[in-house]
Amino acid sequence: MSKGILEFWYEFASTYSYLSVMRIEALAVEHKIKIAWKPFLLGPIFKEQGWEDSPFNIYPAKGRYMWRDMERLCNKRGLVFKKPTVFPRNGLLSARIAILGRNESWGTAFTKKVFEFNFVEDAEIGDIEKLDVILQSLNLDSKEIITQSQSKANKDKLKKQTEEAKQLGIFGSPSFIVNDEVFWGDDRLEDAINYLKEFN
Amino acid sequence: MSKGILEFWYEFASTYSYLSVMRIEALAVEHKIKIAWKPFLLGPIFKEQGWEDSPFNIYPAKGRYMWRDMERLCNKRGLVFKKPTVFPRNGLLSARIAILGRNESWGTAFTKKVFEFNFVEDAEIGDIEKLDVILQSLNLDSKEIITQSQSKANKDKLKKQTEEAKQLGIFGSPSFIVNDEVFWGDDRLEDAINYLKEFN
Repeated sequence: MSKGILEFWYEFASTYSYLSVMRIEALAVEHKIKIAWKPFLLGPIFKEQGWEDSPFNIYPAKGRYMWRDMERLCNKRGLVFKKPTVFPRNGLLSARIAILGRNESWGTAFTKKVFEFNFVEDAEIGDIEKLDVILQSLNLDSKEIITQSQSKANKDKLKKQTEEAKQLGIFGSPSFIVNDEVFWGDDRLEDAINYLKEFN
Repeated sequence: MSKGILEFWYEFASTYSYLSVMRIEALAVEHKIKIAWKPFLLGPIFKEQGWEDSPFNIYPAKGRYMWRDMERLCNKRGLVFKKPTVFPRNGLLSARIAILGRNESWGTAFTKKVFEFNFVEDAEIGDIEKLDVILQSLNLDSKEIITQSQSKANKDKLKKQTEEAKQLGIFGSPSFIVNDEVFWGDDRLEDAINYLKEFN
């Protein structure tokens, strides 16, 4: 728990997280709050519930609804959205890089780029080549970052963060945590912000 | 599909439907729209997905979150809410009565009373005795209504309505349908209303 901070927990493969990634910075400025970006992996959490795939693939009616809902929401917000030809994409390497960069100046920009690759460009985000393109576009030492992201220490950080997500009661992405309260889904972001402002 | 009308699909056991039941009439007046109340059964739809129980019971993290979320939302809206000691309650008989009353003047009042029994009084809504109390409190011929609700013709109406829900792509409650577009969840009610106003 980080006091006075809104924790933003996200998985790179998650459609609804794209909505929050694209608007949370503006909201943070507007409401004068701090955001802690917390990448984690949903896969291990889903596996414990018996799901080997996204529930949007396992339950077709839910899946069909989600794609239409995303289309409507992005349309309403003026956000470009292209249904990815592969879903869910493997967000492991992206999450490792994001956790390495979470306290660096490039962390947020990297995260946004990956989401745009996935949901605007329909590009594979699990490939080193694609992540290399993203890191280079941010004028970063791509090779060094990719190597560091795959160090045991960094891999363990992501494992620990995913374990923490589970302990907090997180079961989907995006989730927002304020004073140990979980708010699930992009449509709860305003509630999470109001909660933070009320109690701090 | 009913043109120019917002269809409100709900299951009596559903917590989030309580939120919509308690506010949809005021919204209809405010926005000058018509609501068609559509009771249906989620059980058969869940069964087809392999669920023999509410997903909030099958997936404990999701369930814990839902109860807390309901508490917060009801608190925010000034709605009384008591976590029912039995969940989900069997909404079959209530749904049969509601479908009988859907075009009668008492249909909406009955539905609201049942939701209050379930989520305010923590009372069993599956018992004939309790439904008798509700119908009598509305000055209705309770015995006659209960008998009619259990006629084969009326049972078939509910079956047909549940089948229609499935065909429409409904997989949860509450759902709102406008011009064949599905909006799922109490937090999409405003979107559904705006969609209706835009296209009619």
